[in-house]
Amino acid sequence: MSDARRPLILVTNDDGMFAPGIHKLVEITRTLGEVIVVAPNSPQSAKGHAVTLSDPIRLNKVDAFGGIEAYECSGTPVDCVKLAKNILLKDRTIDLCVSGINHGSNASINIIYSGTMSAAMEASIEGIDSIGFSLEDYSMNADFNPGAPWVKMIIEHVLANGLNGSKLLNVNIPNAKVGPIKGLKVCLQGEGRWVEEFVEGEDPRGQKYYWLTGKFASEDNRAEADISALQQGYISIVPSVHDLTHHQTIPVLKPMESLTL
Amino acid sequence: MSDARRPLILVTNDDGMFAPGIHKLVEITRTLGEVIVVAPNSPQSAKGHAVTLSDPIRLNKVDAFGGIEAYECSGTPVDCVKLAKNILLKDRTIDLCVSGINHGSNASINIIYSGTMSAAMEASIEGIDSIGFSLEDYSMNADFNPGAPWVKMIIEHVLANGLNGSKLLNVNIPNAKVGPIKGLKVCLQGEGRWVEEFVEGEDPRGQKYYWLTGKFASEDNRAEADISALQQGYISIVPSVHDLTHHQTIPVLKPMESLTL
Repeated sequence: MSDARRPLILVTNDDGMFAPGIHKLVEITRTLGEVIVVAPNSPQSAKGHAVTLSDPIRLNKVDAFGGIEAYECSGTPVDCVKLAKNILLKDRTIDLCVSGINHGSNASINIIYSGTMSAAMEASIEGIDSIGFSLEDYSMNADFNPGAPWVKMIIEHVLANGLNGSKLLNVNIPNAKVGPIKGLKVCLQGEGRWVEEFVEGEDPRGQKYYWLTGKFASEDNRAEADISALQQGYISIVPSVHDLTHHQTIPVLKPMESLTL
Repeated sequence: MSDARRPLILVTNDDGMFAPGIHKLVEITRTLGEVIVVAPNSPQSAKGHAVTLSDPIRLNKVDAFGGIEAYECSGTPVDCVKLAKNILLKDRTIDLCVSGINHGSNASINIIYSGTMSAAMEASIEGIDSIGFSLEDYSMNADFNPGAPWVKMIIEHVLANGLNGSKLLNVNIPNAKVGPIKGLKVCLQGEGRWVEEFVEGEDPRGQKYYWLTGKFASEDNRAEADISALQQGYISIVPSVHDLTHHQTIPVLKPMESLTL
């Protein structure tokens, strides 16, 4: 970024404008650059990388952050980034996109389900350095204060140094119950999955339904895994990709090329 | 899989039960094993890895495939796989999940937006070998016949040989306009992005809207890229991951661990 101007920072999330997490992120970023907020007008957790194809999307300018330019968007988190990049800021260069701070962990495979991380990934596909921040606490009353100075430090570091060949960081902050934050760990994505996933019930008309629930389970004890770092009280930073190629198995699968009808 | 029984194959998609692509996939798979279909009750293109948290999900048994056990699901493609794994088939072993055949390419970054590929990825997270199939033709009248024997051959090969360390294949079939299918190429995910993404308009009440559109653009000319293989008339096969770690940049970013408040 040019020294002659303040960096332009796009802020978004998946919990919507009223979530304390995005207010904390705006409070931090407004001290570091020019901020524009584009966020969903309703909670969009677990929307993954969904985009809105079959409906028009609305943007409404709102005064939700005391003097910061902000828009609520009727679409998904990914739609928010697309509209910011293509409409609101189409003639400008976005220096950094930050998403969150999410209420709930996006460590391990949760990056895949997360609207917060999908918004950040969309920015990375557009060539914008991007960071998703999440706090390992689902409560809307979660305390973002212990993590806030670390979030600020990470953003300052990335604005000053870039991402060194990465385009996207998945940053998770440990639950306050774990104790004081011990520092930062650069990690890999831990393995895990969701288990006991459905509650079954009957609706008032006697029709059966299934409601998604469940808990995250992992047997990944590698010290380098993000979930291990969080358990030990460290903020985890996982450099992440949108190239999903499993490069190691390309040579192994090459013999398929000899298949013929 | 055991020789003593026919393999159990879960079929899903994101275009819904009435899409010709899933009928072609059922026609193919029913010759290879025991098939169960769980698919959305409405088109779910571009839903990415969305899951349904805030609403109950319904499953209705339908007779849509002439004697094949099939359920329409009110949720997303990922919900379909979760319900199949956790409810319908919870006491059984699914040998393979196949998703598609999608109407439209899921090569390059489209894997990230695609409901078809997200369903396949969800199965891979659950430890199930999984393949997503897509035809590079968005039309509901697309001709699946030229690709069908290749799809059958790929499924037979994977049932017999497994995926050799991979869990997920992204298979794309070239548009018929390119000419006869030349064969199979094991590829990497090409780089690309969507451009010219929004139509702006005014609704009948005079309110401004944005409607997502756009076209896919790529400058990735690598011979190993899936989009190159498709242009040359080959079916592309990209082994894919749900571990999004950018492993190469972990050592480069390690100095961030020395940051302190």
